[in-house]
Amino acid sequence: MPGEFDLIEAIRKQVKSQNSSLIETGIGDDCAVIRPGPTGLRWLMTTDMLVEGRHFPMGSASEMAYQIGRKAMAVNLSDIAAMAGKPVCAFASVALPRENSEKIFSELARGLLDEANRFETSLAGGDTNSWDGPLVINITLMGLESAGGAVLRKGAKPGDLIFVSGPLGGSFSSGRHFRPEPRLKLAGELKLALGDGLHAMIDLSDGLGGDLRHILKESGGLGAILDAQSIPIHQDVLNAVGELDKPLDILVGKALGDGEDFELCFCIDPDKVAELPEGIHQVGIITEAPMLMVRWPDGQCKDWELGGFDHFSK
Amino acid sequence: MPGEFDLIEAIRKQVKSQNSSLIETGIGDDCAVIRPGPTGLRWLMTTDMLVEGRHFPMGSASEMAYQIGRKAMAVNLSDIAAMAGKPVCAFASVALPRENSEKIFSELARGLLDEANRFETSLAGGDTNSWDGPLVINITLMGLESAGGAVLRKGAKPGDLIFVSGPLGGSFSSGRHFRPEPRLKLAGELKLALGDGLHAMIDLSDGLGGDLRHILKESGGLGAILDAQSIPIHQDVLNAVGELDKPLDILVGKALGDGEDFELCFCIDPDKVAELPEGIHQVGIITEAPMLMVRWPDGQCKDWELGGFDHFSK
Repeated sequence: MPGEFDLIEAIRKQVKSQNSSLIETGIGDDCAVIRPGPTGLRWLMTTDMLVEGRHFPMGSASEMAYQIGRKAMAVNLSDIAAMAGKPVCAFASVALPRENSEKIFSELARGLLDEANRFETSLAGGDTNSWDGPLVINITLMGLESAGGAVLRKGAKPGDLIFVSGPLGGSFSSGRHFRPEPRLKLAGELKLALGDGLHAMIDLSDGLGGDLRHILKESGGLGAILDAQSIPIHQDVLNAVGELDKPLDILVGKALGDGEDFELCFCIDPDKVAELPEGIHQVGIITEAPMLMVRWPDGQCKDWELGGFDHFSK
Repeated sequence: MPGEFDLIEAIRKQVKSQNSSLIETGIGDDCAVIRPGPTGLRWLMTTDMLVEGRHFPMGSASEMAYQIGRKAMAVNLSDIAAMAGKPVCAFASVALPRENSEKIFSELARGLLDEANRFETSLAGGDTNSWDGPLVINITLMGLESAGGAVLRKGAKPGDLIFVSGPLGGSFSSGRHFRPEPRLKLAGELKLALGDGLHAMIDLSDGLGGDLRHILKESGGLGAILDAQSIPIHQDVLNAVGELDKPLDILVGKALGDGEDFELCFCIDPDKVAELPEGIHQVGIITEAPMLMVRWPDGQCKDWELGGFDHFSK
């Protein structure tokens, strides 16, 4: 394998630093130097690590490096979307298996740069290691809030309507989890259209049934009622379980529990519902009673427990 | 092991968020929210990953987690020092071996928080994974430049005097590499005393013989002459090789090649030499001729090659 400096030099040449005028010094010094953002805007910082054997199959690093790089960047971009922010620059650290390290590195870099370029984000620094272990990649992403402000997990209120940005479930069984689509554009449109009426937002990595609880907890211990028939079931769920012969609770269980959808879940002031863009899905309502419930077609509301699918299949 | 959320909650309680008034939202949302810095100041961003079997011995994660956490934070702080900046907040990602993961996590966190607190730096976010692999920790550090500006690797000029902040070599043989001392205070003093006369700076992770080349390259292809007798040899080198029976070239070879000293190397305008604080070491001079040379006691100058010690011992 070529030296670390050669690898870094190769990446440095591929980086489109014109993606951001805020990067004054990028790859190649002790630190990157980032100019102050537009007056008063706050920075959004997020970091996510992907590890072989957990986020992608053990032994797949050589074949899948491009997809792994792309996903590593996308899941961080999704966190910036969840705040309705704009990504600026990324910092990537890798631990490369010694075998095929050069190929893995260049494919990984190609994947993460392709994804970064789609959203006018630059790679501004990183750290490269090779070792006798499996592939690990960590990305830290730096973004700016929109002029309207960052949208936090806290801020939901009783009576808020709950929406998701797309159909849920089946991400792992279909391999779709490798191609998350960061909802940066939609998040910006929502913030612009709803302003302070966009009360709380999160991106769905652990499944709606788990991630919605973060909003409920951070908003001071609220609850929610989800409407089973309104939850958009992804075609990947239907493909996996067989559309015709499965009851709704199985499908809802997968939609709420599978995870890695990377759709947005957000809570809005009900008076603002007319301002919403097309193509999103109202799934429920925020309640004062601190429980996460699902309303079934027979009108009954039942507690929703974590690991919902197992719960229902018992 | 307890769930990821429990571990994160435990850390969240230990973090001294009062370390920085710039952190508006720390651990626990999709992103951290960081206020703009003082008007006009640029951000300094650095990231470093430590991996088991490379930066610390394979199998040592359980016993050494505290030291590993402290070192992971310290090497990033050292990069901020190399820019004469002030650290603000850190983002830590970990891949934890499943065995002893809870103990490793809490000791790792204690180490990195202790080191962060020494320099009024807060942990503002992170990502926690457990897996069937060895320990990996990545830290991204966010700092601000000083009012006088960031000191880059580029900026050295022919005739500049080259200094190092302390004795070099023997860091690995002694275990000193686990206790790097980030030279943040000294870097701030240097910038304040020398202003624009502090032309270029780097922290020594790969050894002076390697890291000085970054300054020479980034400054437009310059060279340097180091004076063998002026290079401060660390006592750890003398302990390791035997003080009495080793020629100077062996000692200099270790001082220049061992690495992980985490001292500062900096180049200054020779007119500013009277402004320097005590306790630093002048080791050479920047030249126009693009070669890294060492002047030996007999007056001869010889090319210094990377991997200097092996070169001399041949």
